[in-house]
Amino acid sequence: MPRQMHLGLFILGTGSHVAGWRYPGAVTSFQDFSAIAEIARTAERGLFDLIFMGDNLNADPAAHPSYTLRLEPLTMLAALATVTSRIGLGATVSTTYADPFSVARVFASLDHISAGRAAWNAVTTANPAAAANFGTVHPDHARRYEMAGEFLDVVGGLWDCWDDDAVVADAASGLYIDPARVHALDHAGAFFKVKGPVNIGRAPQGRPVVLQAGGSEPGQILAARTADVVFSVVQEIGEARAQYAALKARLAAFGRTEAEVTVLPGVMPVVGRTDEEAFARLAVLQGFIDSSNGLALLSDRLGIDMSGYDLDGPIPDIPLPDTYHSFARVMLSKARRENMKLRDLYNLTAAARGHWVLCGSPTTIADTLEEWFTTGAADGFNVMPPWFHEGFTDFVDLVVPELQRRGLFRTQYEGTTLRDHLGLSRPAPKR
Amino acid sequence: MPRQMHLGLFILGTGSHVAGWRYPGAVTSFQDFSAIAEIARTAERGLFDLIFMGDNLNADPAAHPSYTLRLEPLTMLAALATVTSRIGLGATVSTTYADPFSVARVFASLDHISAGRAAWNAVTTANPAAAANFGTVHPDHARRYEMAGEFLDVVGGLWDCWDDDAVVADAASGLYIDPARVHALDHAGAFFKVKGPVNIGRAPQGRPVVLQAGGSEPGQILAARTADVVFSVVQEIGEARAQYAALKARLAAFGRTEAEVTVLPGVMPVVGRTDEEAFARLAVLQGFIDSSNGLALLSDRLGIDMSGYDLDGPIPDIPLPDTYHSFARVMLSKARRENMKLRDLYNLTAAARGHWVLCGSPTTIADTLEEWFTTGAADGFNVMPPWFHEGFTDFVDLVVPELQRRGLFRTQYEGTTLRDHLGLSRPAPKR
Repeated sequence: MPRQMHLGLFILGTGSHVAGWRYPGAVTSFQDFSAIAEIARTAERGLFDLIFMGDNLNADPAAHPSYTLRLEPLTMLAALATVTSRIGLGATVSTTYADPFSVARVFASLDHISAGRAAWNAVTTANPAAAANFGTVHPDHARRYEMAGEFLDVVGGLWDCWDDDAVVADAASGLYIDPARVHALDHAGAFFKVKGPVNIGRAPQGRPVVLQAGGSEPGQILAARTADVVFSVVQEIGEARAQYAALKARLAAFGRTEAEVTVLPGVMPVVGRTDEEAFARLAVLQGFIDSSNGLALLSDRLGIDMSGYDLDGPIPDIPLPDTYHSFARVMLSKARRENMKLRDLYNLTAAARGHWVLCGSPTTIADTLEEWFTTGAADGFNVMPPWFHEGFTDFVDLVVPELQRRGLFRTQYEGTTLRDHLGLSRPAPKR
Repeated sequence: MPRQMHLGLFILGTGSHVAGWRYPGAVTSFQDFSAIAEIARTAERGLFDLIFMGDNLNADPAAHPSYTLRLEPLTMLAALATVTSRIGLGATVSTTYADPFSVARVFASLDHISAGRAAWNAVTTANPAAAANFGTVHPDHARRYEMAGEFLDVVGGLWDCWDDDAVVADAASGLYIDPARVHALDHAGAFFKVKGPVNIGRAPQGRPVVLQAGGSEPGQILAARTADVVFSVVQEIGEARAQYAALKARLAAFGRTEAEVTVLPGVMPVVGRTDEEAFARLAVLQGFIDSSNGLALLSDRLGIDMSGYDLDGPIPDIPLPDTYHSFARVMLSKARRENMKLRDLYNLTAAARGHWVLCGSPTTIADTLEEWFTTGAADGFNVMPPWFHEGFTDFVDLVVPELQRRGLFRTQYEGTTLRDHLGLSRPAPKR
């Protein structure tokens, strides 16, 4: 079988487009679990590798509504585990604002509940507004990545505390747990001190899958060392190839092979039966962007308040703050390259928060995804529908079959766990 | 309609009896979600008010297996929300080892997912072994209760940040959230600093239900001020009446009525078709207690290492440590009153961890529960089956119908939310 594409579904509230909820017929409530369950079932019908939930840790009522108002990812995914049977379930939890003992056990628990479909998207939380909800000070970028590295090591170590055969449950002898097969961690590092063992047995996947998205240099190093799946933010194929090659080249230094890390650039597909219909749909969506929301979103992505600048002026010469998203670099360089006005930049950011927008017929979209996939730019894609449900069902019903006809995408799930879908083996505990 | 009894189901891993998993035919895996889903469906068939999960934050492979190995409560309850439709879903989260922003949002999320069935059992975590998993020092009893009081206030405040009508979602105007109807909390207290608002809209129940079990003086004051349901640990009806009256008497000082707090003593029912059969079943269970497990569990409940004492000697004159459970006081006073040997005490503790064991035919059990319920000892019961499934299905199939025949228990759910089941109104946000 030729190499197969991997697909993730990114669920961000009312759709990734800032105004997706205004599209005619769109789902407008994202605290309605039944709507989310329908989205998950659609993704599973489309044989996606995984569903993936973002997160943030503050509410700004003036910003993107999906940032401000959402179900908490772990409870939502645990509930989705029971209404799906094969698709992977990934949730974002911050390494800056959570503790490793709790993170290790919730993802192990999700892995047990879902029979091996859990994934943790480890983020460091870029938005400094989170700190005020946790009574603390937002650590700077470098320190957040130092914490993240240690945090990931601790969580991995906790996942390895229980041998696979530690639970004996021998009713005759009365031995339930064999203490010799349960190991403390005894971690004491610069940021965390965690004794262990964790109070949940070894996960069906051994270790739940780890996702990461950091685009900075420390983010790329951390991903090369610890991630199974990397979401990337890119706008053009050349840039995607360079980033892909750079990440894969880093793996050997950590004793890892290229097949062990799946790189999925984010893409917002706007699908129409024809290219014209697709562009007309995008125009409808862009027409809904309100300048205040657009600027608030741009300010959030850049980490700089942009409300004072002239919308019809050039992109101001702004230094990136320490808290910037990797989006910021990608977007600013594109905007300067293409001589955009501030209005163009916020429109682009509002569309997909800096991610690549791919607009066209199923053939056009499949052609482009195929080119990226076969020429070293991607192992698959993190699909970010602009709105739900039609903005996603069109991808599943029109684009997926086209990818399958080309032999690029599975026609059934071959395995049962997310590791199976990604072609990853089940790791033995490291001691 | 006469006053109705309330019933909660306490799920502790392999059953509340330390050796319940050894009972012939018992469920032995408690990381198997399908078994837990079956238990939840049985409880809903029995029209229970709620299911309730304990928790602990450390693993001791030598202790009660259900303490050491379990699914994480929030992920487990969220998954149970989708396989049940009416029963309340309560989970334990510690006010000593969690943060209020995260706790407020997970329970609000569970309340949205379950359409108004979430409950938080707020505990302070008695076992000092938790601290080593969080890189911290276990606060003393008084400090834990001071923290808990502030923690509960912050969580309540976060639940009140969003007005019911804050989500406008007006596609025509583009207004999704009305910022005037979302309020910051701006809490800055002795232990927590939390700005808010929380990033999830107002819960279906307004505020999820709050459960508590603290039996100490600060625990009782906290419960009187903040709890909707109180689980109590009692061994005799006289003691239960005194405790019930004392708690209800405290409510007026906090501007609350007696009907606003439901008191549920814990009870482990051992049901047989006859009293003889029930006692024979208890004897089988007690015969499975292993002295090392029995002593480890007793040590855990008392907060003192009991392994060095003579099993056939009297109860040693031990001072209670600062970290004791309320179980400890109840059990030690009973043991001294009844002149028990250490072996008797650990057998009793192993049976139900210090809770009341009620053994008999459906008539005997209903008689006793009715007496407690009608003479000021209880508003209902927290049912702790010794093992699953038969140790619980017998209660649902034999005892519940007897309670219904006597007009003491509902014959159908009248409402849809846990507040409905408990007769509690939906609170307006406090500003």
